[in-house]
Amino acid sequence: MFSNIIKVEVQFGDCDPAGIVYYPNYFRFFDNATAAMLSAAFAMHKRNWLEHFGIAGIPMVDTGARFMKPSRFGDVIEIHSEITELGRSSFGVKHVVVRDGETMIEGHEKRVWVVRGEDGGIRSAALPDDVRKRLGAQ
Amino acid sequence: MFSNIIKVEVQFGDCDPAGIVYYPNYFRFFDNATAAMLSAAFAMHKRNWLEHFGIAGIPMVDTGARFMKPSRFGDVIEIHSEITELGRSSFGVKHVVVRDGETMIEGHEKRVWVVRGEDGGIRSAALPDDVRKRLGAQ
Amino acid sequence: MFSNIIKVEVQFGDCDPAGIVYYPNYFRFFDNATAAMLSAAFAMHKRNWLEHFGIAGIPMVDTGARFMKPSRFGDVIEIHSEITELGRSSFGVKHVVVRDGETMIEGHEKRVWVVRGEDGGIRSAALPDDVRKRLGAQ
Amino acid sequence: MFSNIIKVEVQFGDCDPAGIVYYPNYFRFFDNATAAMLSAAFAMHKRNWLEHFGIAGIPMVDTGARFMKPSRFGDVIEIHSEITELGRSSFGVKHVVVRDGETMIEGHEKRVWVVRGEDGGIRSAALPDDVRKRLGAQ
Repeated sequence: MFSNIIKVEVQFGDCDPAGIVYYPNYFRFFDNATAAMLSAAFAMHKRNWLEHFGIAGIPMVDTGARFMKPSRFGDVIEIHSEITELGRSSFGVKHVVVRDGETMIEGHEKRVWVVRGEDGGIRSAALPDDVRKRLGAQ
Repeated sequence: MFSNIIKVEVQFGDCDPAGIVYYPNYFRFFDNATAAMLSAAFAMHKRNWLEHFGIAGIPMVDTGARFMKPSRFGDVIEIHSEITELGRSSFGVKHVVVRDGETMIEGHEKRVWVVRGEDGGIRSAALPDDVRKRLGAQ
Repeated sequence: MFSNIIKVEVQFGDCDPAGIVYYPNYFRFFDNATAAMLSAAFAMHKRNWLEHFGIAGIPMVDTGARFMKPSRFGDVIEIHSEITELGRSSFGVKHVVVRDGETMIEGHEKRVWVVRGEDGGIRSAALPDDVRKRLGAQ
Repeated sequence: MFSNIIKVEVQFGDCDPAGIVYYPNYFRFFDNATAAMLSAAFAMHKRNWLEHFGIAGIPMVDTGARFMKPSRFGDVIEIHSEITELGRSSFGVKHVVVRDGETMIEGHEKRVWVVRGEDGGIRSAALPDDVRKRLGAQ
């Protein structure tokens, strides 16, 4: 299914007193990676596709990561992201952090396609055919 | 004028590879300190006073800090905040970070009282009398 | 096994343009919750128990979370943390985020007890008996 | 004196419930901008110049910013950084945030060149001639 790669240069402020990336920051990187992947799939920026599809967002319902190797500031890491699953109103993503060809971290997430209801709350909505087709493309 | 004190326990993840608080985090602490001070002055939470006064927020227009001593994770710091100035539609705040009676940092900020206009944009509005009275109280 | 509860007041800056906690921040909260739990178990601050046990840290090797309900700024959430597993050189933790008695998020993590080797790198080390006893206590 | 420009794409998670960049994040951007400027001046990464010059860091002693216009996620901003002052053991930096040719923010900072003393603490040290020459170059 659809995939995308972004590069992230680890910054001094991303790291903790142990000198390695403070792990919550990887979830920030992953959120950016998913936004970049969908922007590539939809050929428009997140700011625009939120509006284009009339959705309130793609909230996270389940995420996790296995950390094999730490990264340090100055490292340039790649995040290889890929759609792994297309549900009725949700989709799965896999992220692999790679540095110099080596797998550092494996992450996964499940997100929901949501619209804002008339009561101001949010509810899940079926993935539009166009979204399903683009995210399912090789 | 009105003043307030909050305590912050410095966390591991607030610190950088030098082992001290990553300085941008102090501005996050200061933002929390100002929210706490106004919540004390108005006797309601920020979530409520935004609605109560019908404002869109209190955006920052000018801020700065002098860093005299660093703090480390595990340190419990106090932030002494005080209103320093009440303009027509803006107010000034001073923050002093204190640890064990010693001044670590001095910060200042100027914020604007803004409402949302009919065009969806924001514009400054005069501080309501009640706000002026409460923030000006000893 | 050992358990602990901390309270977190969600701050304005913890939230994203959707008005809810930006989910990577929960992992920061969980990291603080684990530090607080071990500090309670060992009856000393993290800064002290790192030194007391001569360890380089407790790096994360696997973590994840299921998000059932979002929280907003001004919410006070509880994080109920509990040791779930004691391996030779690792331990598991479960976190449950509770607001007004309702479960909002379930998280889990696996961490390793590491020491610094003579080459400057880190390697896992067996949990000391005292640690095992304290973390295993009801 | 020496100057440098970086581009930053504002991410969803950089923004707050008002939909604009949460201002403490600009100080994170500025820290990255200064690191990038010195890396350009010294023709090596921060990780390397810390070691090359044998310094413990370049801690902030004074910083501030004036916010004229807000930015939103999806905006690509430029940060124009420039050395403004070279003291015996300190240097000044000016940052201007520009979007589509318009000045959004003006920031400034003063940092100190520090080495680690024999007692483990840090103390300021004179800027090496090579550093002074490179940072002072047009």
